Amino acid sequence: MKIGIVGYGNLGKAVEKIAEENKNFEIVGIFSRRNIKANHQVYPLKSAIKFKNKIDIMIMCGGSEKDLMIQTPTFAKNFNVIDTFDTHNLSTKHFENVDKICKESQTSAIVCCGWDPGLFSCLRAVFGSIFDNVNCFYGKGISLGHTNAIKKIKGVIDAKQYTLVNKKTLKQAKANKPVIKNKHIRKCFVVATKNKKLISKQIKNIPNYFKGEKTKIRFVSQKTLLKKHNTFAHQGQIIATDENSSLFLKLKMKSNPIFTAKILLAYCTALSRIIEAKVFKAFTPLSIPFCWLYDKDQKSIIKELC
Amino acid sequence: MKIGIVGYGNLGKAVEKIAEENKNFEIVGIFSRRNIKANHQVYPLKSAIKFKNKIDIMIMCGGSEKDLMIQTPTFAKNFNVIDTFDTHNLSTKHFENVDKICKESQTSAIVCCGWDPGLFSCLRAVFGSIFDNVNCFYGKGISLGHTNAIKKIKGVIDAKQYTLVNKKTLKQAKANKPVIKNKHIRKCFVVATKNKKLISKQIKNIPNYFKGEKTKIRFVSQKTLLKKHNTFAHQGQIIATDENSSLFLKLKMKSNPIFTAKILLAYCTALSRIIEAKVFKAFTPLSIPFCWLYDKDQKSIIKELC
Repeated sequence: MKIGIVGYGNLGKAVEKIAEENKNFEIVGIFSRRNIKANHQVYPLKSAIKFKNKIDIMIMCGGSEKDLMIQTPTFAKNFNVIDTFDTHNLSTKHFENVDKICKESQTSAIVCCGWDPGLFSCLRAVFGSIFDNVNCFYGKGISLGHTNAIKKIKGVIDAKQYTLVNKKTLKQAKANKPVIKNKHIRKCFVVATKNKKLISKQIKNIPNYFKGEKTKIRFVSQKTLLKKHNTFAHQGQIIATDENSSLFLKLKMKSNPIFTAKILLAYCTALSRIIEAKVFKAFTPLSIPFCWLYDKDQKSIIKELC
Repeated sequence: MKIGIVGYGNLGKAVEKIAEENKNFEIVGIFSRRNIKANHQVYPLKSAIKFKNKIDIMIMCGGSEKDLMIQTPTFAKNFNVIDTFDTHNLSTKHFENVDKICKESQTSAIVCCGWDPGLFSCLRAVFGSIFDNVNCFYGKGISLGHTNAIKKIKGVIDAKQYTLVNKKTLKQAKANKPVIKNKHIRKCFVVATKNKKLISKQIKNIPNYFKGEKTKIRFVSQKTLLKKHNTFAHQGQIIATDENSSLFLKLKMKSNPIFTAKILLAYCTALSRIIEAKVFKAFTPLSIPFCWLYDKDQKSIIKELC
């Protein structure tokens, strides 16, 4: 599979690393706005069009709102694309944008294909169809969305937000008791030189992110933030219960981008099957049967997995 | 959805119970070879043909080798069918038998649709495409296949076989170490009046079931067996690991048949979508995207789960 990597942040680097180790993939090029150094040939983002018909799948590795919202539909005009779009509120809009372009341009796409949304969406779907109650818990790990929400506050120089599981609520979920709120604790490390009291108040009042959530704030130096709070580790849990049965799932990642890259590359096999079948539209992992993740015929897959 | 239940053992009874509680289902009839009493109208197995076009889906609740191997293809001639066929060695053969009949008879089917094979097959598929190592562990719970293998020995009056997880091997799997054998301990409770030593030797030498496995045998009275070893509880675990990440999943069921019934009824929604789309063939859960488990349009599903 000839692939291109669009964006060379943490995810782009992880995709490069995992693809290098897998002989099914040939990295044709890395496309970036910045002047960067990589293990493979780097090209300016704008020159990507020259690679039309020379790349099977473009792996879109930018951030959701700033990059993917624009880049995935744009690239879908000329390439088969896969991304990890993860802004929940905008996921249907993003899907529809990409789907429309794919149908017009005779390309194929998979969007929202990380661990959440993506893998966890599929698990929520199947567990939700069997169990009465399904709850997801995240952390300990850094949430990019929450971190960015803090950074937007005037006076904040830098920040990191850890999402932590509220163990009391987790216990309730495990006991098949209804869980609506207080699932997480928000631990914020903030760099700011003044107005700390006001900034704290402002953080705690950010709607959708912190308001109504248990939020702890600590001010630290830029040096400490960079040194001590630069982790890529993350965790996720799913608790599915009813009166008869319970299912506990715990996912731990040393590196969130590496795990996400592995999912992206697994779904590249599915996408190449979609491309081969000339199905010109967009998918999310929810519409993809798991047998498509294997480059094998149906009989072998049943024999191996049933 | 108008359903018929074929077979009224533990699974048939569980399907009846769960379907009764769900207003999406209308139980048209229960079909049995035996003269049984149920909460719904019972008909002789042979009279089922009279219900052609009056039942949307026939839920096949017999045992795998003795019943389903014959019944599912036979019923597929006139009905859309779903079953929990679970004899691993014969799963591709069974799938192909049913698939052929469906294509000839313009019916649709889902086979191998329990918790394993079925749910766990799907999870093995997706975890296997992302992680380097995936291992499944079963128990503590009664294995029907192993129990039946013991019962076939001359002199055995009755028996139950518990599958237990070998905790040492589980620990190795969790530590991302290669695991090939010794995953389980086989605990057998056997009713026999004589030749106990010979029977023990014979059990431990049954190929594919006990030979090479850690097997413990205890002889008990028929009364004790019926009283103390009549549990429907079961458990399953999946451990997926690589250098970067780990995923632990633990499923506990008070009643294995109730959980299996819930899966069957969840996949009835998928089957009714397949029927509506006039796709006349057989599926396993591996070929079914999880969004089909919901009677909703794609946009709502993405909004809810992505």
